[in-house]
Amino acid sequence: MEPNTYAQAGVNIAKAEAFVERLKKQSRRPGHKDLWKGAGGYAAIMPINNDIGMALTTDGVGTKLLIALELNKLETIGIDLVAMCANDLICVGAKPSGFLDYYATSKLDDRMADDLIKGIVEGCDQADMLLVGGETAELPDLYEGKHFDIAGFAAGLVRRDELLTGESIQPGDKLIGVASTGIHSNGLSLARKVLTDKKWKEELLTPTAIYVKPVVQLLGGRGLIKGVANITGGGWRNILRLNANVGYRINNPLSLPEVFVELGKKVSSLEMYKTFNMGMGLAVITSGDTDKIIETFKEFNFKAQVVGEATENKGHIEIDGGIVLGGKI
Amino acid sequence: MEPNTYAQAGVNIAKAEAFVERLKKQSRRPGHKDLWKGAGGYAAIMPINNDIGMALTTDGVGTKLLIALELNKLETIGIDLVAMCANDLICVGAKPSGFLDYYATSKLDDRMADDLIKGIVEGCDQADMLLVGGETAELPDLYEGKHFDIAGFAAGLVRRDELLTGESIQPGDKLIGVASTGIHSNGLSLARKVLTDKKWKEELLTPTAIYVKPVVQLLGGRGLIKGVANITGGGWRNILRLNANVGYRINNPLSLPEVFVELGKKVSSLEMYKTFNMGMGLAVITSGDTDKIIETFKEFNFKAQVVGEATENKGHIEIDGGIVLGGKI
Repeated sequence: MEPNTYAQAGVNIAKAEAFVERLKKQSRRPGHKDLWKGAGGYAAIMPINNDIGMALTTDGVGTKLLIALELNKLETIGIDLVAMCANDLICVGAKPSGFLDYYATSKLDDRMADDLIKGIVEGCDQADMLLVGGETAELPDLYEGKHFDIAGFAAGLVRRDELLTGESIQPGDKLIGVASTGIHSNGLSLARKVLTDKKWKEELLTPTAIYVKPVVQLLGGRGLIKGVANITGGGWRNILRLNANVGYRINNPLSLPEVFVELGKKVSSLEMYKTFNMGMGLAVITSGDTDKIIETFKEFNFKAQVVGEATENKGHIEIDGGIVLGGKI
Repeated sequence: MEPNTYAQAGVNIAKAEAFVERLKKQSRRPGHKDLWKGAGGYAAIMPINNDIGMALTTDGVGTKLLIALELNKLETIGIDLVAMCANDLICVGAKPSGFLDYYATSKLDDRMADDLIKGIVEGCDQADMLLVGGETAELPDLYEGKHFDIAGFAAGLVRRDELLTGESIQPGDKLIGVASTGIHSNGLSLARKVLTDKKWKEELLTPTAIYVKPVVQLLGGRGLIKGVANITGGGWRNILRLNANVGYRINNPLSLPEVFVELGKKVSSLEMYKTFNMGMGLAVITSGDTDKIIETFKEFNFKAQVVGEATENKGHIEIDGGIVLGGKI
């Protein structure tokens, strides 16, 4: 049977989330200052003093790695790795500053390692971040054949008065969607089983867009942005993470990249919206000047448009055509 | 053939180091403040303002994981993970503050995941650090069977006037050794092939000591400590990382844990010293009150003693009995 849901592809999001919840309970201990709360828990924010905090996050690229290995094309997977971390930092209003990578493989291969770095450095440039360190581990017997794994860690700084909490979002606020470059680094366990043709596999490798520069520029505009959601695993439901008291209506979506049209031939629409970014890699919420925001993204060659607005139907995203998304990611 | 060197066990340290060097070249970019230089490159330090910097590091536990899996005993491997990161932060004078873990597996197993967290939380408590986040990835097809990997990421803060650079170390300074709890998390690829008996495998799983609390307490004593070396991969040569202009003579080593005696039956002495901590998990260099330092470690139940001193024989460690260590790790 061909898998056509994310769970059938072997990924249990609910179980993973429950584990993360158990982890979170550990983040309060006596003798430590309380963390600052950033929107959607996209990054942990530790206060340094009253004015500035350190935002920390970690991520991997999932099974996009396996496609890169299969196609023997590792030059851009590092961009994805940086993107997954950097795009999370900006969701809490932090400016990315330092990146570290963990790279574990059965046997270090110079060409593969250099290709990998090349992508990481390119990603760091796009995110205006420094690659400051890393761990390279040769783990014979743990990884099979040419398999390896990479994890990224990013640290940023956020001024308390620029922290994005999502708290001020209210019905009527505009939702601006910023175009993705394709599937990014989510839903690949499903996609790579559905799209087995080489042409599509190459398409799946398109690097994740890094939205840091325009967002950092917009953060300077005091309160113009109320929330930023990185659309990763769980699809558009990520927008619901920002504020539990509102919902959204999306009636003017960005055009759908071809890869999603192809995936849609095998995967149900609901499953598609619950899993993939569907052409919108980042969502920005504002009650201010939408043109200014759209123009700023355009300066950095990102297509952006008003795709909908916040509603009173809390916890739900109504999509034109009848699909309603809700529930925890 | 039974492997009896680290290279034969499949680990090429020189190659890994060369890769890290290539990575380091990327850490200077226009538009970014220069990093502060901490001793031995144990952690990257990014200035936040003139007074305070953010120290960042990442590490894994290597093939100690495979022993944990084989013995089905995952409760303490998280302690090792935290230790590998936290013990690096203190080498640059930073106080550990936040920890994140990356945990990737083929299929999330609640019991395994909970055991893993248990260790991470225990490690964070020992390091007086908060577990503030993590990524849990289910990667079907990348990891085989019950295999998984974990990486740790730690951030700390360091005052500029407490930064450990190792620059002031000079011949005649005392070298204080602090006892390890056994093999810690280095040299396991070799050790687990030499020690195949279950009794010894259990011994190899003993968690890595976390030296944070005594060292942080000592850092308050302005200049009392000139350098701290976490003895990880490469053995005692780690001490040479602190200052290239001196060497060391070690004539009063800490007693050798039994596991190293056993390993020594199969592995040459030179290889042992080049690979393992040989009973000394941390080295502290001072020209001040050695008793105060030793007493402070004792308060936290760590055995410490003056094991030798810095010499003019730069780049070399002379060990009583005739072994001389040198060269890059």
